[in-house]
Amino acid sequence: MLIQPVVNIADICARKGVEQVVLSPGSRCAPLTIAFARHPKLTVRTVSDERSAAFIALGMAMTTGKPTVLVCTSGTAALNYAPAVAEAYFQQVPLLVLTADRPPEWIDQLDGQTIRQQEVYGRHIKQSYTFPVDIAHPDAVWHSARLVSEALNEAVAFPAGPVHINIPLREPFYPALGETVTYSDSIKVIEEEQPIYTLSDLQAQRFVQELQAYKRILIVAGQHQLDMELVRTLENFAQATSAVVVGDIISNVQQSPGTVRHQDVIFSCTNEERLAKLQPDLLLTFGKSVISKSLKLYLRKYKPKAHWHLQQAGQVADTFQSLSKIIRCAPSEFFKAVTKDPSPSNTFTNAWKYMDEKAGRFLTDYTGSAAFSELAVVGRVLAELPQQSNLHLANSMSVRYANILALQPEQQVAVYANRGTSGIDGSTSTAVGCALTSKGITTLLTGDLAFFYDRNGLWHNYLPENLRIVLLNNHAGGIFRLIDGPKQQPELAPYFETHQALDAQNTARDFKMDYAAVRSLHELEKVLPVFFSSAAGPGILEIFTDSVANAEAFAAYKQAAREAVSL
Amino acid sequence: MLIQPVVNIADICARKGVEQVVLSPGSRCAPLTIAFARHPKLTVRTVSDERSAAFIALGMAMTTGKPTVLVCTSGTAALNYAPAVAEAYFQQVPLLVLTADRPPEWIDQLDGQTIRQQEVYGRHIKQSYTFPVDIAHPDAVWHSARLVSEALNEAVAFPAGPVHINIPLREPFYPALGETVTYSDSIKVIEEEQPIYTLSDLQAQRFVQELQAYKRILIVAGQHQLDMELVRTLENFAQATSAVVVGDIISNVQQSPGTVRHQDVIFSCTNEERLAKLQPDLLLTFGKSVISKSLKLYLRKYKPKAHWHLQQAGQVADTFQSLSKIIRCAPSEFFKAVTKDPSPSNTFTNAWKYMDEKAGRFLTDYTGSAAFSELAVVGRVLAELPQQSNLHLANSMSVRYANILALQPEQQVAVYANRGTSGIDGSTSTAVGCALTSKGITTLLTGDLAFFYDRNGLWHNYLPENLRIVLLNNHAGGIFRLIDGPKQQPELAPYFETHQALDAQNTARDFKMDYAAVRSLHELEKVLPVFFSSAAGPGILEIFTDSVANAEAFAAYKQAAREAVSL
Repeated sequence: MLIQPVVNIADICARKGVEQVVLSPGSRCAPLTIAFARHPKLTVRTVSDERSAAFIALGMAMTTGKPTVLVCTSGTAALNYAPAVAEAYFQQVPLLVLTADRPPEWIDQLDGQTIRQQEVYGRHIKQSYTFPVDIAHPDAVWHSARLVSEALNEAVAFPAGPVHINIPLREPFYPALGETVTYSDSIKVIEEEQPIYTLSDLQAQRFVQELQAYKRILIVAGQHQLDMELVRTLENFAQATSAVVVGDIISNVQQSPGTVRHQDVIFSCTNEERLAKLQPDLLLTFGKSVISKSLKLYLRKYKPKAHWHLQQAGQVADTFQSLSKIIRCAPSEFFKAVTKDPSPSNTFTNAWKYMDEKAGRFLTDYTGSAAFSELAVVGRVLAELPQQSNLHLANSMSVRYANILALQPEQQVAVYANRGTSGIDGSTSTAVGCALTSKGITTLLTGDLAFFYDRNGLWHNYLPENLRIVLLNNHAGGIFRLIDGPKQQPELAPYFETHQALDAQNTARDFKMDYAAVRSLHELEKVLPVFFSSAAGPGILEIFTDSVANAEAFAAYKQAAREAVSL
Repeated sequence: MLIQPVVNIADICARKGVEQVVLSPGSRCAPLTIAFARHPKLTVRTVSDERSAAFIALGMAMTTGKPTVLVCTSGTAALNYAPAVAEAYFQQVPLLVLTADRPPEWIDQLDGQTIRQQEVYGRHIKQSYTFPVDIAHPDAVWHSARLVSEALNEAVAFPAGPVHINIPLREPFYPALGETVTYSDSIKVIEEEQPIYTLSDLQAQRFVQELQAYKRILIVAGQHQLDMELVRTLENFAQATSAVVVGDIISNVQQSPGTVRHQDVIFSCTNEERLAKLQPDLLLTFGKSVISKSLKLYLRKYKPKAHWHLQQAGQVADTFQSLSKIIRCAPSEFFKAVTKDPSPSNTFTNAWKYMDEKAGRFLTDYTGSAAFSELAVVGRVLAELPQQSNLHLANSMSVRYANILALQPEQQVAVYANRGTSGIDGSTSTAVGCALTSKGITTLLTGDLAFFYDRNGLWHNYLPENLRIVLLNNHAGGIFRLIDGPKQQPELAPYFETHQALDAQNTARDFKMDYAAVRSLHELEKVLPVFFSSAAGPGILEIFTDSVANAEAFAAYKQAAREAVSL
């Protein structure tokens, strides 16, 4: 027998702009499965491993900006969503998580697939709701529809994030023979008009004046989705205020030629005099996390006089330990409102420009002539990325290598990475979600630990044609040989690096993907154009390197970088 | 620099009887990794996928009865433990979960691998503790050692379960060159002597008298670890009171020849007169969950006059909706205390015996002559299990088939299954943990969805020689074709069964396991003796069946069973 308020959930989602639904199989969730699967306007897919399902949904929501719906059965299914839910929470990506549950009277009665699902995501969810189990009373029907609207409104309100509706369901779960699903015309939907977070004229005038007091303005962009309007307004503002813009690869402001991109190289500088020239008096930040540890350490030491952070709403982090003012305004609105005529470059902008160009030249020269190692490999891969394609960077070394090397502005590549929690657990699935909801090539750059950890991201029937996986396989967690500390310990190999024996050939066979293995730069350069061609199918390009050689090459690079920028 | 109170955690664990430690790699957890890896008395292994790591630890604790220690780094690593932690909570298995964390001042500051770890397991943990971050004050040192004792005491106190210590750590994480780890001699350990949950003489006399008022005593054993002393005292009690003992395969009382094992067949009976003869006046239960749904439905309908449940402590479920008395006593203590001289069998015991023998004969005849299908296959596999070996049953159809077919008492096989939450998520890992901590063969009986879901249970460097995986591959979640409801829906194939294309050959290649594929009973019978020989290495025996044919065979079996026991 169909429960109409449960059927209506699917319809409310569709009416409120949801397009993508990821289900995992189960019996308790059957009424939800049927309600979503039969809806004519929703794209519904089934993924068996709930951990991967949730990261796929995350990737879809990151790409589309719209909430993805997740549906799972009762029990530990809901717990397998938790890593992706936490990533969505900290990366501020909207998800609507629907978990089927036993009715309250059967909780803790030793029935199968029964846990304590209410508030199961703890402090990693924007809001949790409980669907009414008895829908005989009209108020309960009103409640049931209302909370779906409330949940979706909450998911997209700034800062966006995951919301959870726990849905207790009694048997029978299945429609009777001949019973048809009808989506009610009279269904109640609550729309919510989101605010424009902007400045009043008075505020804007005041900020224009205040900004004039600062001659050395540094803007650091944290993780942000690609938004070309933001990139342009930021460019104009920077010109008007002679400000310097620094952006990691995940900030998606490297699309502007004016953005400083080589901060990881610049701050390997040991020349104190040169470093002092880069110190800002005003630090202006927006966006989420920053990858470049050397930039963070620099700014914590060379503190600005003031640090303003632009953020519409929500908790603000004091990443640089110098935060003095929070401005509740959308970054692009702020930049637009306070931009006057361009002002000429000055000693501060020149100092940064000098260092960034020096660092960029060093990288071009160094990686151009470097022997085969991960750093050189990533350089070649980034250079060959198709124009306007998507790049998903896995944790942990993949995203760091890419951040050191940076993208060229003209590539216009949109960059994604799970830097909300920086876990290695769901990169493949997230990239799959991104590929499923975008047209061009989506490239995943990943290491072997992250790749095999989330192998189930490929275990479903929707392998996207536009997916390309570049797998850096050194048979270990290479980062532990690259950072100080673990590399001196006797536990390095068995307990930190964690040697793993797999290569991806059998995985490619399992999932019927193209596969190429390369062991030299020469081979890599030959393969890359074919691999990235849109005519090729989904493929894995596995690049075998040696973790000891990588560590030596990385140490040599660091030494060379230090010398190049310190001279 | 080593932090002595962190080093001491490993030593306190060793002194309090911990033997097994499962680490996952990370940097934040390095002080814990080093403390455990260097301890001379602990067996320490590294597993990269934390979800699998936690289920492996669970399997070890299920087998040994001792708490296993888990160690992971900060961030979503802790969330990947959650499914196994919930299973441990409901299955009452002791785990000590140690999660490294950032210090409190760096929470919510957009640093990598930082979530909100305090109380992260919500209501699925016995107790949560926070390790002191500043250990300068002597009281903090006292606190740090005390809480490790408290946590381990809590983990094993009845009902056993998982406990969590969140451990915030500041850099540096690594010992200086030349610094050695020393385990302090003066370390403070708090032992806890657990109570004997028994009856006073007065209570025992009263129960002996009360029991005399009942002529039709039915004992239903829920999930329980194998305990031959319990099996013997139960046998004696049943003889003394003319009671009938019914036990699912996971109750581990099928080792007694007197136990009724064919309840799934018996309650397919439609003969009301015959069913009425099986109704108890006293229902006596102990242990955890019951698999047999038909037994549960029978007892909820044919209610006893009284239902006593034996359980030392903790929340009690009213599984049969007839609970009238909770007796806080260990089951074996109760049975010993109230057992008098054997009394003769009566019409009640005879009725049960008649039905169980009838059901057993039916099964022998039916499966002996049945064509190739999952039911027939599982029958052959169970019959060939090595004496005194371990059997891990995956959810969902594997455990149900095995429960229908039952084990022979003389096999003395110890049976494990994740029936705390009945998830499909960690069966392979749990079986691996069981194999790693036991001597004889450990057989995992699993379906394809459960197997590929948890493929990472094999992704580490400790593949046990004694592991045997019997994989029933029908390329789908076969249960949905076997139960009423989904099989009539158009969504059956795409959204419930969820066709999956993998077979295990590439997996066997990846993990260098023996591999055999069979497609007939004849092939199976030829392979089984070799597969189960202790000389063979770890292997996967993949049995390909067709889900439509399985469904037809299962329907035919049900029909035949109904007829056989209803006549």
